[in-house]
Amino acid sequence: MTDETENAASVTEQGKGPSKKAMKKQAKEAEKVAKKAEKQVTSAQGDGGDQPDISEGRYGVLPLITSIEKPDRTLVRIGSLVRTIVQYCTVLLSYTVQYMITATQLLFEQRQQHFSVQCLAMVSASVSKQMVKFLSNVTKESLLDVQGVVRKTDQKIVSCSQQEVELHVEQAFVVSAAEPVLPLQIEDAARSESSLEEGDGPSIRVNQDTRLDNRVLDLRTPANQAIFRIQMGVCELFRQALQRQGFVEINTPKIIAVASEGGANVFEVTYFKNSAYLAQSPQLYKQMAIAADFEKVYTIGAVFRAEDSNTHRHLTEFVGLDLEMAFHYHYHEVVDVIGQMFNAIFRGLADQYSEEIAAVNKQYPAEPFQFLDPPLRLEFKEGVAMLREAGVETGDEEDLSTPNEKLLGKLVKAKYCTDFYILDKFPLAVRPFYTMPDPQDPRYSNSYDMFMRGEEIISGAQRIHDPKLLAERAALHNVSLDKIKPYVDSFRYGCPPHRPPP
Amino acid sequence: MTDETENAASVTEQGKGPSKKAMKKQAKEAEKVAKKAEKQVTSAQGDGGDQPDISEGRYGVLPLITSIEKPDRTLVRIGSLVRTIVQYCTVLLSYTVQYMITATQLLFEQRQQHFSVQCLAMVSASVSKQMVKFLSNVTKESLLDVQGVVRKTDQKIVSCSQQEVELHVEQAFVVSAAEPVLPLQIEDAARSESSLEEGDGPSIRVNQDTRLDNRVLDLRTPANQAIFRIQMGVCELFRQALQRQGFVEINTPKIIAVASEGGANVFEVTYFKNSAYLAQSPQLYKQMAIAADFEKVYTIGAVFRAEDSNTHRHLTEFVGLDLEMAFHYHYHEVVDVIGQMFNAIFRGLADQYSEEIAAVNKQYPAEPFQFLDPPLRLEFKEGVAMLREAGVETGDEEDLSTPNEKLLGKLVKAKYCTDFYILDKFPLAVRPFYTMPDPQDPRYSNSYDMFMRGEEIISGAQRIHDPKLLAERAALHNVSLDKIKPYVDSFRYGCPPHRPPP
Repeated sequence: MTDETENAASVTEQGKGPSKKAMKKQAKEAEKVAKKAEKQVTSAQGDGGDQPDISEGRYGVLPLITSIEKPDRTLVRIGSLVRTIVQYCTVLLSYTVQYMITATQLLFEQRQQHFSVQCLAMVSASVSKQMVKFLSNVTKESLLDVQGVVRKTDQKIVSCSQQEVELHVEQAFVVSAAEPVLPLQIEDAARSESSLEEGDGPSIRVNQDTRLDNRVLDLRTPANQAIFRIQMGVCELFRQALQRQGFVEINTPKIIAVASEGGANVFEVTYFKNSAYLAQSPQLYKQMAIAADFEKVYTIGAVFRAEDSNTHRHLTEFVGLDLEMAFHYHYHEVVDVIGQMFNAIFRGLADQYSEEIAAVNKQYPAEPFQFLDPPLRLEFKEGVAMLREAGVETGDEEDLSTPNEKLLGKLVKAKYCTDFYILDKFPLAVRPFYTMPDPQDPRYSNSYDMFMRGEEIISGAQRIHDPKLLAERAALHNVSLDKIKPYVDSFRYGCPPHRPPP
Repeated sequence: MTDETENAASVTEQGKGPSKKAMKKQAKEAEKVAKKAEKQVTSAQGDGGDQPDISEGRYGVLPLITSIEKPDRTLVRIGSLVRTIVQYCTVLLSYTVQYMITATQLLFEQRQQHFSVQCLAMVSASVSKQMVKFLSNVTKESLLDVQGVVRKTDQKIVSCSQQEVELHVEQAFVVSAAEPVLPLQIEDAARSESSLEEGDGPSIRVNQDTRLDNRVLDLRTPANQAIFRIQMGVCELFRQALQRQGFVEINTPKIIAVASEGGANVFEVTYFKNSAYLAQSPQLYKQMAIAADFEKVYTIGAVFRAEDSNTHRHLTEFVGLDLEMAFHYHYHEVVDVIGQMFNAIFRGLADQYSEEIAAVNKQYPAEPFQFLDPPLRLEFKEGVAMLREAGVETGDEEDLSTPNEKLLGKLVKAKYCTDFYILDKFPLAVRPFYTMPDPQDPRYSNSYDMFMRGEEIISGAQRIHDPKLLAERAALHNVSLDKIKPYVDSFRYGCPPHRPPP
């Protein structure tokens, strides 16, 4: 056990833990609170009675942390506890998960984000019976400060992320105690639908409303911890891909004076003595940034849609990732940039977020995401042909219904082995007034949607950047020119051709 | 001139420009539009008359770009036109700025974001009189596609960003024409207040309302182009500094059910059949993320304040950069992280955005920003003492007025040579109910503000993470417990001590 001794020595050098004075004070306080806690929670168990407590000052409930001092202790994350580094350590604050109690020892699990480690508190020369008992009464989801020796285990601990080591506890304080009755158990909230259906475990299902009413607990599941990190990853990879291409990040107004897209599905805000609206998209502002010579811009921010439907495609508020760029000759310059941006995100997630994806898959199993490089681009006509071949009746200039989108996603996946593809050249009739018509065929337009697993995730088009043509098309669509004047005017002082995903 | 010939040859290999067919079509169209344009704009000037046009097909107004083809031309940015690389090139779309016309030649300036280059169109074997005349009639702020030879100039061109070269134009097309009368001139909008006051140039001042009514033009000034890029830089450096420390980016709801901070200064939204509110800060959500075991989070997003005041400190909507982190022993762990984050932003801006800062300084002169590493931290008491020493009467537990904040900024700058400092330990009485009292002196609190040039830019405190103490303090502040129940409840299931800038 040489290396253990060495490590213990080096840790002593790094910092011995709280100062003696503070320890004493803590111990006193802890003892007081612990006694109170014990009174409340102990029941039939025999306690240490009047025996002197050899662990005094090494466990208990910490007083409320009010920033009195800064002890010089080195704190270790659970995720970094691995078998090659056997050491004495203090674990960064972690949540207590579950217990197994035998006569003289207590096994419990501590969790930190999506990492967890098994802890062992065993009556010994330094650990008292009272201490083991105190720890066995700590409520689940309480926050602990635990110190001890990291040891290799004989068997893999399958329930924990750190499977090869366990922590032999020598000191443990409750930093923040959870109430004894939790509205939901993390392990229930983390259970997969398939395991519930197969009945190979407890069959407690946590409903959506219980989750949302207790979001703080629900977010402690490994899948939710991972989803938040993947969300961050998507934004980060989006930015990186676009910054490499010289894009400038902008922020666009959310409270706007005019309900830009005709007034449907827009939230109204009481703006002092007037009314204002919440922006349904940053579209007009992005385009004005292009006319203002920013050339390539992107924005990440809240968008608002007053859609009173409860589907996963209808949210009243979400975070939009949006871009707009000037091009020279052909809107495919932009389509290519967006396609490559998606591939960079797909690749980046697979490379940098594999642990998080695995955590999500454990609760929500899914096949690995497939994509082609360069991405597949089909014309709308080709999509219609594939649907017809599969027996679907759909018109040449008819928009895709949601079921048809899903079916086409499956047909494309079967034929081309990709979960991501671009559908180009939509019928002009089904797109907004500002969409540039296809110069070769007036029934179609310079517009496209992109799909992931049969769901549209982005929609875009070359915008009409000529004020005269824009006014003509607006009139055809019965869009009042008065209402879109600042938008049309922004093209009057020189504007490059451009396009975005709205 | 060997290198020029070589470069011309190599460019020919890379791509000759548009295909012959397209060129012919363009030329035809251009000629037609150009003729029309000439008719409209020429007046007293003599024209080429019936002489054959040797430049036919090399100038004119391009037809509306509807994505017909993708010519294989290599495009060059104005910012990359430097004297060491003399070459034949096509400049990426750029805006026409201003002219100087002599008998046979035309000097004009092309601008691209904050870069500009002088262009020369001179009657020659390849440039016709008609072409020079056509170009001299292009309206300012029109978007051009210009091709020519880059040559070193004899004298520095002080009006342009590219001072050592000019472009000898051989081909030029109008991609998007600006209207002849502009609501404001870019050079007027870019003029500094001091140059207006000193009267060392034209004295046209562009008013704020003219700017805002014509934001697309106003944003073409070098200072505004730079400000947008610096804004991006601040967000980017903020993210980088925090990601290095393991922070997770989150997004928080903007439409909320309850007016969280007492209902004052909050915008009301009509939410279907109910009312909702716009979030005044992401605070409660950040804290709930900490209670949900994210440990360190940040968010960048819109915040809304219904403040009907027209000062630069009162905006109804702005982008907030916000963070929250758990700490172990002392809220100074967090203060240190924030201080270092600010220093990383200051350093990053100076290193990576010096060109942009110079562009802003040209219109808005300012001294270089000074800061200390580590940042200066003063206690509130010390600040009060400095103010009193300067003759200001202020109470021990009185909040700083705006004039006192400004004065203290000047005193600190004079004494410590820093534009950035932290003022720690504010009186408890002037801070919100959720602020942790100072454990050593109940008149003060574990809270602070940070200042740049005498203006508060961030405000923070250790939050009370104990539900009982929180309820007590709320009662003292007359905050109804009913209204903050979900917030208080989020501390009931184990929560680390934490603090944020609200």
